[in-house]
Amino acid sequence: MGIIKVSARSRTASVAGAIAGVVREKGRAEVQAIGAGAVNQTVKAIAIATGYLAEEDVHIVCVPTFVEVVIENQERTALKLIVEPRDYSPAGTRTG
Amino acid sequence: MGIIKVSARSRTASVAGAIAGVVREKGRAEVQAIGAGAVNQTVKAIAIATGYLAEEDVHIVCVPTFVEVVIENQERTALKLIVEPRDYSPAGTRTG
Repeated sequence: MGIIKVSARSRTASVAGAIAGVVREKGRAEVQAIGAGAVNQTVKAIAIATGYLAEEDVHIVCVPTFVEVVIENQERTALKLIVEPRDYSPAGTRTG
Repeated sequence: MGIIKVSARSRTASVAGAIAGVVREKGRAEVQAIGAGAVNQTVKAIAIATGYLAEEDVHIVCVPTFVEVVIENQERTALKLIVEPRDYSPAGTRTG
């Protein structure tokens, strides 16, 4: 699955559209952000995508976790936010 | 329900403890943040609280929404993150 990487300069509407598109197509999206500005844009984008998908009766939630990533030979701690429908089941029992 | 207000200077471990405590006691927590630094601390705190509660077999998710708040006579847009178990049911069918 593709990871959506968000920066402090990412436009929230664009990221929201990307998140909604990936959730529709793949069932869940992974969004990665490093730094306060990027995390802020990510959470705003998820709030917007929640509205988009609610219109389609898809009710998403997010689960944040820490991940270590290497950027230009430096290890950094990123936040990864998994976005998926509340009733999402990795086992494939989802009917929606 | 009490709202947990997070600032850019809030300690993530303290906020994580507060979130876990409110979820244990009330079933869900509402966390409010204004500005990128505060949102970043909030998401990190939720990631930490997720670990705390997972040890008790409580698997939380979060749902971000925008809210308008008035601070010192100025209207500002805050992010409110509702934190609750994935299987939380407001109708009271939860058995955990």
